[in-house]
Amino acid sequence: MMEITRREEFSAAHRLFNPDFSDEENEALYGKCANPHYHGHNYTVEVTLRGPVDPATGMTYNLADLKTAMRREIIDKVDHKNLNEDAAGFMKNRIPTAENIAISIWERLEEHIEAGLLHRVRLFENERNFVDYYGGR
Amino acid sequence: MMEITRREEFSAAHRLFNPDFSDEENEALYGKCANPHYHGHNYTVEVTLRGPVDPATGMTYNLADLKTAMRREIIDKVDHKNLNEDAAGFMKNRIPTAENIAISIWERLEEHIEAGLLHRVRLFENERNFVDYYGGR
Amino acid sequence: MMEITRREEFSAAHRLFNPDFSDEENEALYGKCANPHYHGHNYTVEVTLRGPVDPATGMTYNLADLKTAMRREIIDKVDHKNLNEDAAGFMKNRIPTAENIAISIWERLEEHIEAGLLHRVRLFENERNFVDYYGGR
Amino acid sequence: MMEITRREEFSAAHRLFNPDFSDEENEALYGKCANPHYHGHNYTVEVTLRGPVDPATGMTYNLADLKTAMRREIIDKVDHKNLNEDAAGFMKNRIPTAENIAISIWERLEEHIEAGLLHRVRLFENERNFVDYYGGR
Amino acid sequence: MMEITRREEFSAAHRLFNPDFSDEENEALYGKCANPHYHGHNYTVEVTLRGPVDPATGMTYNLADLKTAMRREIIDKVDHKNLNEDAAGFMKNRIPTAENIAISIWERLEEHIEAGLLHRVRLFENERNFVDYYGGR
Amino acid sequence: MMEITRREEFSAAHRLFNPDFSDEENEALYGKCANPHYHGHNYTVEVTLRGPVDPATGMTYNLADLKTAMRREIIDKVDHKNLNEDAAGFMKNRIPTAENIAISIWERLEEHIEAGLLHRVRLFENERNFVDYYGGR
Repeated sequence: MMEITRREEFSAAHRLFNPDFSDEENEALYGKCANPHYHGHNYTVEVTLRGPVDPATGMTYNLADLKTAMRREIIDKVDHKNLNEDAAGFMKNRIPTAENIAISIWERLEEHIEAGLLHRVRLFENERNFVDYYGGR
Repeated sequence: MMEITRREEFSAAHRLFNPDFSDEENEALYGKCANPHYHGHNYTVEVTLRGPVDPATGMTYNLADLKTAMRREIIDKVDHKNLNEDAAGFMKNRIPTAENIAISIWERLEEHIEAGLLHRVRLFENERNFVDYYGGR
Repeated sequence: MMEITRREEFSAAHRLFNPDFSDEENEALYGKCANPHYHGHNYTVEVTLRGPVDPATGMTYNLADLKTAMRREIIDKVDHKNLNEDAAGFMKNRIPTAENIAISIWERLEEHIEAGLLHRVRLFENERNFVDYYGGR
Repeated sequence: MMEITRREEFSAAHRLFNPDFSDEENEALYGKCANPHYHGHNYTVEVTLRGPVDPATGMTYNLADLKTAMRREIIDKVDHKNLNEDAAGFMKNRIPTAENIAISIWERLEEHIEAGLLHRVRLFENERNFVDYYGGR
Repeated sequence: MMEITRREEFSAAHRLFNPDFSDEENEALYGKCANPHYHGHNYTVEVTLRGPVDPATGMTYNLADLKTAMRREIIDKVDHKNLNEDAAGFMKNRIPTAENIAISIWERLEEHIEAGLLHRVRLFENERNFVDYYGGR
Repeated sequence: MMEITRREEFSAAHRLFNPDFSDEENEALYGKCANPHYHGHNYTVEVTLRGPVDPATGMTYNLADLKTAMRREIIDKVDHKNLNEDAAGFMKNRIPTAENIAISIWERLEEHIEAGLLHRVRLFENERNFVDYYGGR
């Protein structure tokens, strides 16, 4: 069993804020991430596919195809965007925490990668914080 | 002659936009960086001081003091902020390009570091782009 | 299922030496790591928690709380310390190999993180060597 | 249960080409990686062993021994070599994709590491692409 | 005075060999880098421009234009190529040492960047070796 | 004019302490770096040589020779050592600050590198702090 991983980056603004909570509750929960005028990150996303190696090609999946899918379905949708204001369809109105961005990336890729290959979405918010999502299993 | 350097990071939103230009001119000049809802970066700032080594201490400057000055005068002012909306005093209303952020950092530090020691401000916007400012010399 | 990870660093001295062995046996086993006057490393520790995402907050665990726990329970105990001489309580008198440091970190965090969330402690001794501990399971 | 990992690097030339396919098919499948005069990479290989910690030594496996095995059985065989022309025995005439290089490394190490300890071979072709092989299980 | 830097990568094969020397002399001079079947690297190139900041734009040079020039004049010429066999025009038949690759990059860019702006070409052969070229001054 | 740089690493323990000062003065000056039982770092040292490119070899200096000199004259002297206790000759009894370690490296290399080539010694104490020494000029 082989896993292959491709890494891409995007830069985006976001703000953590739940409109069901008061400003004080948002501040207590999200700290400086609740700042109303947004802040931003250079996000790094790693997508891992898992499957057997095709003996004819020596590949589990063509990394050039994975790169194309990641750029078209993820990077073009969120790079140099505001995740709260510009990416409603991509984020499905979820609060743009690292966890929710990873879920949104997974759901988007799932429509474009053959069933069962998608194994993990890892999202780095910066060099110190990252999340791993393995799908709703 | 010795140079000592300290590195810190901050995360901020920004937008490149000159109000003296039309929207079309801003778009032509700044591309996707002109997006009206902002985007953001994990910025890395390196501050370099230059001077002789004190034989009694073995140090050119106490790196603990440099760290304190950088956190108080730079990081606390811009981290998790919007450089267009929240940092008017710090940026002096300059367009927040990497070049102008470096100039603003230099001017701020110059008020707090002994004369002649400040040598270079390096600002990384991401892993691929950075600027070096050596003061108005 | 989501995993979230936070990274911190500390700098410490250590020496690998088992008092039950002769000097020759220690030298044969640990090589230059047995040097009697110690050597040291910039250690990097990554702590991973595993659990569901709270739909109200969009978070598995508040990374600010994880940062606080890691700094108070790990970094403050070992940073700029000698793991053989200054950290007897933390290390429980284990030989300070990377494996044993990871176990000590796990045991310390287990007292401060809600049951079942702690998933992995990764400890880098340098850029070339690291260990992963998943608890005594 | 503990996992320990050691990282090494090597630089090699390769070309992706299946002689059973036409030049057009190779070009369509492998793109610029099929260039007849080869290209090359700085590969990074991480080998992970998995097992219990020996209470007498505090180690799962002596990292000095793992380093020696990796240098003798991997790095000395492929560093500054052409994976298509100079490494027939190592690669067993497989097409030198990242997946197949990882399999070849696994098979080589399996002959030199105690049974059941070898857990994962991770191979980075560059900073953006890597594969993980867990053996034929 | 401001310096701005852009980083790009390419992967190429090369061999260090001077046809005026005997095989023994080449081996003595270049070691394993003289291997006849080539080896390869992931090269990183950083191009630095130096000049004043335009107050209207806040920029020394448009980094998007520098990126375009670097990709068209450097990366497209050498990526996934053999520097000895496929890049005769680019390398001007120089031996493809790191020093000579940096000189070739400088000469190429000089034809496309406004006079006096080009300040430094830094070329990393790997994470441990790099060269800096400041032009023929 | 060309500059070539080689990077190596070493791990060492140290303590910042001036015996001419009281314990309180050392604590005030060096903070936690004065801890009596030492702490340690993974140091990274970069040595830069500066000179013309030899047209016959395409090299300013043979990087293999620089690597050999750095390992023999620096790494073998300080790796897995205590800079206060085990390296009296190397450090010439200087307080082992980053500045003084860089000076000691410079003085050592100066005896083994052809006159005028040695340009800079850069020493990283960790990823956030580094010093550059250009000789006593």
